[in-house]
Amino acid sequence: MPIYYIFSISLFLLLAPAFSFAQTDESEKDAFFIRKIYDEALENGSAFDWLTYLSEEIGGRLSGSPEANEAVEYTKTIMDTLNMDKTWLQECTVPHWVRGESEIAQIMPFGQAEKKTMQALALGNSGSTGKQGITADVIEVQELSELDELGEENIKGKIVFFNRPFNQKYIRTFHAYGAAVDQRVYGPARAAKYGAVGALVRSMTNKQDDVPHTGVTVFEEGIPLIGALAISTNDADFLSEQIKKNDVVKVYMRATPEKLPDTQSFNVIGEIKGSEFPDEIILVGGHLDSWDVGGGAHDDGAGCVHAMDVINILKNLNYKPKRTIRCVLFMNEENGLGGALEYAKVSNENKEFHMAAIESDAGGFTPRGFACESDSELFKEKYKALTQWLPLLEPYKLSFETGGGGADISPLKSQKGILIGFRPDSQRYFDYHHTKIDRIDAVNKRELELGAASITSLVYLLDKYGL
Amino acid sequence: MPIYYIFSISLFLLLAPAFSFAQTDESEKDAFFIRKIYDEALENGSAFDWLTYLSEEIGGRLSGSPEANEAVEYTKTIMDTLNMDKTWLQECTVPHWVRGESEIAQIMPFGQAEKKTMQALALGNSGSTGKQGITADVIEVQELSELDELGEENIKGKIVFFNRPFNQKYIRTFHAYGAAVDQRVYGPARAAKYGAVGALVRSMTNKQDDVPHTGVTVFEEGIPLIGALAISTNDADFLSEQIKKNDVVKVYMRATPEKLPDTQSFNVIGEIKGSEFPDEIILVGGHLDSWDVGGGAHDDGAGCVHAMDVINILKNLNYKPKRTIRCVLFMNEENGLGGALEYAKVSNENKEFHMAAIESDAGGFTPRGFACESDSELFKEKYKALTQWLPLLEPYKLSFETGGGGADISPLKSQKGILIGFRPDSQRYFDYHHTKIDRIDAVNKRELELGAASITSLVYLLDKYGL
Repeated sequence: MPIYYIFSISLFLLLAPAFSFAQTDESEKDAFFIRKIYDEALENGSAFDWLTYLSEEIGGRLSGSPEANEAVEYTKTIMDTLNMDKTWLQECTVPHWVRGESEIAQIMPFGQAEKKTMQALALGNSGSTGKQGITADVIEVQELSELDELGEENIKGKIVFFNRPFNQKYIRTFHAYGAAVDQRVYGPARAAKYGAVGALVRSMTNKQDDVPHTGVTVFEEGIPLIGALAISTNDADFLSEQIKKNDVVKVYMRATPEKLPDTQSFNVIGEIKGSEFPDEIILVGGHLDSWDVGGGAHDDGAGCVHAMDVINILKNLNYKPKRTIRCVLFMNEENGLGGALEYAKVSNENKEFHMAAIESDAGGFTPRGFACESDSELFKEKYKALTQWLPLLEPYKLSFETGGGGADISPLKSQKGILIGFRPDSQRYFDYHHTKIDRIDAVNKRELELGAASITSLVYLLDKYGL
Repeated sequence: MPIYYIFSISLFLLLAPAFSFAQTDESEKDAFFIRKIYDEALENGSAFDWLTYLSEEIGGRLSGSPEANEAVEYTKTIMDTLNMDKTWLQECTVPHWVRGESEIAQIMPFGQAEKKTMQALALGNSGSTGKQGITADVIEVQELSELDELGEENIKGKIVFFNRPFNQKYIRTFHAYGAAVDQRVYGPARAAKYGAVGALVRSMTNKQDDVPHTGVTVFEEGIPLIGALAISTNDADFLSEQIKKNDVVKVYMRATPEKLPDTQSFNVIGEIKGSEFPDEIILVGGHLDSWDVGGGAHDDGAGCVHAMDVINILKNLNYKPKRTIRCVLFMNEENGLGGALEYAKVSNENKEFHMAAIESDAGGFTPRGFACESDSELFKEKYKALTQWLPLLEPYKLSFETGGGGADISPLKSQKGILIGFRPDSQRYFDYHHTKIDRIDAVNKRELELGAASITSLVYLLDKYGL
């Protein structure tokens, strides 16, 4: 499409955003200021540089790791450059799980076939197979309920393979994730309860490839802690074919993770005190920890740099908020919520009120809008008030919907403010989620910057008009 | 965001698309059918496989090249499998420009500095420097109008370097392209008019990197055909710095393209005849040619496979159109519009009426909506009718706007039907546009498939209700 667009637009587009409702002086001012927010994000935003450092210089940063500590130090240092009224570290207790030596997963030879190595990653909080590893017959299931039907007589001594794929029909990939991830979160422990010696889980992704996706699994007290590996979707399909073709398929698997004692870490926090309503807090946040593989670029380095860039942009535009704007980088979202729970506890003890809390934890992709929820009796009215800002956000193709705000802000729900989840385009998110390829080269600079601008615009409106 | 979404949604989302306007039986049927279109595209669509073949097996396919011929053959073969009523090749005349040997562009040594090689690509239709290449002083300009001020006395014998960057403030990257591309299209010829011996043009992209972007340049009759190279944005910045630091910067450039005699090629066309209104044509199309470097995956392999998948999806759903649905893969959009002009000429001779023509030529990214234009006196009413379908398209986050339909369908404007441009998300488009990295790995399968589903849904509504 080389020539069609030439000269078809003018500087007008930059200077005079169009909006269709009755233009008051105030709404014109708002439109103008929001346009300045976007200009600032796209021309002078720092999000991409910060994210490059977080994901490439520091890298994967699971709670309790040296990298997580580095990320705390780095972001605290950055926040200290942003001229906020106050920055601080908030101590919290986090689990400390380490992956151990590289995982091995192999389909053992049968008939003429050769041994086949699969791409695998131990699931977070999963157990060790011992250094020697284990070899056992594999049974494949699609649903957790099948385990109850199979019972101990069919499961004991075996490796259970959870292989229900993402349903591609969901338009939003998060819905496909939500409909499949019970296998990863609860599958291994449920199998262990019936005597399974190991678990394999098809990676949680829309994509057909060789990249395994880790993520948390949960073993309740008293359940034997077995080895549990995510395998790539290509390997899952291959293994499933072998099971269909052969009566017995044996897999060798080895993983040597360890759960070390809980340790101390920190939420990283900074705030600009409100000039008129300092007790009404508007929180913007993401989570600082990531899985240990890859760079945690989209999950959730993007959310962290979004939150910091909100402050940066408002400061650069010399904006003085009426309400307190607080940037919170939560520790330990991935395997425990230690940071989020501590933050809410302290906030409640201090009788704080989060008028609004915005979480960015769905990647650094092109913004589509915001999902809102609240336990307030006035939620309907508040949501309606939000949607009245739509004409100001429509030039940037943003919309509102009701829905979950996010894991880290969810403990704040009892304060009855509004919880808001930033919703960027979801199509590519699970291509990278919890993998070694969630790195800066998977992030488009402008998409990331548009996210920062979108969240900043909403913060501006929340601050100016309250809710 | 690992656990938040678990079980928060249900099968309901798949089966019962929500829409907010008064639900008639008919609108429920439409919603259901559109949901089936998306299911089909996401589960059984062929777009990604076809595009893989086009961009990786055939590759870059500039008009007149053997690859362009291969692309004609391949897509004709595919169309023949789609059980349309008719498929055919439509002959058209196309230019035949060949790149020649690899380009060289070097900043010549001065003082302590070393010779610096730049990443460069000759612009389409540009001239040769001769095998020996040329060395000359460089002058940098930002605007074409500066050439008139500089005049022959300052330009003659020099290389003119056009270095106005993309304006990052535009939310849509196509607007930034539109505001910069005059340099590439008209700059070299304008410089040649004043006696320049060569031209360098900053690559048309938002991205700061080492990848040069080719594209068409235009030399009118009588203007000396000089060498003209696109250089990467990193190299453009470096060259500009050198010019600022030093009085005289010399560049060596070599490019040996040739303009061969015009040749014959083909539009590839197939149609399903309408059962009730066969004379009302709904066209879906993209362009089959691409630049010679890379794989032409987004530009415009994506548009071609979108168009073919519209037919494929409707056929798989056993849909019998009332109107004639025609799939057209145009040849020679990139450097001449030979195919589009021939198509419109024949169509006008046959007194055809394109009730609607939809072009996909903005990449295979997540759909955002459609831009519409028309020379019809009833355009306002027709546009209003279109927007009444919005409740059916909102579950898929599609919107309508007024704007240009596309280069290949523009010659059909005189038929006074409605011209519609498919508008996917634009943020990444110019990262790949006209480069060696516009390949299948730059395309997300689901984003591509959602595009096919969006266009198919619009075709369904256009066919059912007319316009």
